[in-house]
Amino acid sequence: MPTTNRRQVVLRNRPVGMPKPTDFDLVESPVPEPKEGEVLCRTIYLSLDPYMRGRIAGGKSYAAGVEPGQTVVGGTVSEVVESRHPDLSRGDLVLGYDGWQTHAVARGGGLRKLDAKQAPISTALGVLGMPGLTAYVGLLDIGQPRPGETVVVSAAAGAVGSAVGQIAKIKGCRVVGVAGSREKCDYVVNELGFDACVDYKKGNLLAALNDACPNGIDVYFENVGGEVLQAVLQLINQNARIPLCGLISEYNATELQPGPNLRSLLINRALIKGFIISDHLDRTRDFLTDVGTWIREGRLKYREDVVTGLENAPSAFIGLLQGRNFGKLLVKVGDDPTR
Amino acid sequence: MPTTNRRQVVLRNRPVGMPKPTDFDLVESPVPEPKEGEVLCRTIYLSLDPYMRGRIAGGKSYAAGVEPGQTVVGGTVSEVVESRHPDLSRGDLVLGYDGWQTHAVARGGGLRKLDAKQAPISTALGVLGMPGLTAYVGLLDIGQPRPGETVVVSAAAGAVGSAVGQIAKIKGCRVVGVAGSREKCDYVVNELGFDACVDYKKGNLLAALNDACPNGIDVYFENVGGEVLQAVLQLINQNARIPLCGLISEYNATELQPGPNLRSLLINRALIKGFIISDHLDRTRDFLTDVGTWIREGRLKYREDVVTGLENAPSAFIGLLQGRNFGKLLVKVGDDPTR
Repeated sequence: MPTTNRRQVVLRNRPVGMPKPTDFDLVESPVPEPKEGEVLCRTIYLSLDPYMRGRIAGGKSYAAGVEPGQTVVGGTVSEVVESRHPDLSRGDLVLGYDGWQTHAVARGGGLRKLDAKQAPISTALGVLGMPGLTAYVGLLDIGQPRPGETVVVSAAAGAVGSAVGQIAKIKGCRVVGVAGSREKCDYVVNELGFDACVDYKKGNLLAALNDACPNGIDVYFENVGGEVLQAVLQLINQNARIPLCGLISEYNATELQPGPNLRSLLINRALIKGFIISDHLDRTRDFLTDVGTWIREGRLKYREDVVTGLENAPSAFIGLLQGRNFGKLLVKVGDDPTR
Repeated sequence: MPTTNRRQVVLRNRPVGMPKPTDFDLVESPVPEPKEGEVLCRTIYLSLDPYMRGRIAGGKSYAAGVEPGQTVVGGTVSEVVESRHPDLSRGDLVLGYDGWQTHAVARGGGLRKLDAKQAPISTALGVLGMPGLTAYVGLLDIGQPRPGETVVVSAAAGAVGSAVGQIAKIKGCRVVGVAGSREKCDYVVNELGFDACVDYKKGNLLAALNDACPNGIDVYFENVGGEVLQAVLQLINQNARIPLCGLISEYNATELQPGPNLRSLLINRALIKGFIISDHLDRTRDFLTDVGTWIREGRLKYREDVVTGLENAPSAFIGLLQGRNFGKLLVKVGDDPTR
């Protein structure tokens, strides 16, 4: 039995606009004990993702929200420290959904064992996890890119965007990223092989995007909303497809902002389709096969932005909403025994 | 050979905002003569449709525009008065695309012969023509309504909307129209069998639509844009489908207005898909079979709003853009020998 206390980040109150560190509390309590069929896990990595803004917002979203006083939710990679489930043993490394805390009791049946020999365990939260599957399904199943087409992806240096762009390159497309700094743009072009990248903070977004997409835009993988979508809609080709994955630029708005005029969709017979990755878990096997292969072949790279210490999760999350992360954002909550 | 002159309505200048009668000119010239392979047609019915606003607007749309000085385009039902094409004879009734004029020379190969015994010839411009096919393809192929689902259609008393709602009823859906007068609402409910209809001019659109759709909205067939779409997006269910057929409320805007916020699409995994009926002509045979059967069985009704005289085409067209028509709007340009 561990002798330390459990630490948890709980929601103090629903954030209004951009979350502040004071919207969260760090609390301590005794480490809980697992019942029959459960395991006690020690969190190693906590995933921070934009969708969490919706979970702490209240109101209708696509999953139950986090109430004030509750631990913030999130995907985790953990080590089993005590097992009362027949399929799991002390020392097993597992993918779970334990949230922003150092220890958690979880039902053993809901956890997936990870093999550190196959891939670094942290990738189960990123390129080989939910963000990677999101990129794979959204691009391939909704975007349906064809060789020679132009694919644009926003938040291009992020966990989802960087995978979208590289998969589109593998599929033979011209790939243009949109990102929020010169450094990120250089990274996706020079390291990940994108054909071009537009820094949306430099101004003249429409002109820059037009220059980067001489043949128009066939697929736009939408992560951000706002002005990027406005500009893209002016450049789409006939039969363009827009997988709508996120609208991060709007998540902190205190009221819904107007969206883009939809005339371009009509004229161009174009499609916008919202999707939620939990509807598409049947694609996990294909995803792991394809993306696992591409990673091993060196054709798909990933970058992690690791913040150490659970107490830093709120500020890291706020940074994510402001685009300050560079790559898949993780919080290292405890020691990684595989490194 | 006819001894009268040909009369044509030509575009005087591109309308700014809502078209005015002075944006058009009525001109006369000698009736032209057909060359080998051509026929001379006398227009009986001219179809007026919202898409024509885009054709006379200049700028990018989904088909070549009408230049000032040119005859305005449009679908027509005509009688062949002189034929130099082997498949057509004097007296044949044909569906063509002769535009706003009393006589036209057309290539014989581009015309479809009509059989007045099968259906009134005017229906080739309405319920058995382009508007009917638009309703059929948009609703069934993009909307994919399932029995028990709620289908909402705007411009519900119009040529397309009235067919959409009745086909959705045939498919077992709850059908709610949105229209611009009490009279139109009464018509679609009492004559066409819609379950409910909301008069958008009465105010409280969102509340009225919410009352009419107790189980939310699964399919919204979009003809109008603007506030109706805004309200609908607040009421859609998960996996809702929105075939985007038209945005008539915005066609006369001198600059693009903001659209709806797209957060609802994301949360609800919903789809908006623009479509242009000319991409779907391969569905014509199924359409004619199904809709022809439904009309014969009395399950699908239609209403025509016939304005007499080519000189009245501009004012009738302006009325269409203002929602003043009630049913499929036609201009009777010449005598109908079948009535």
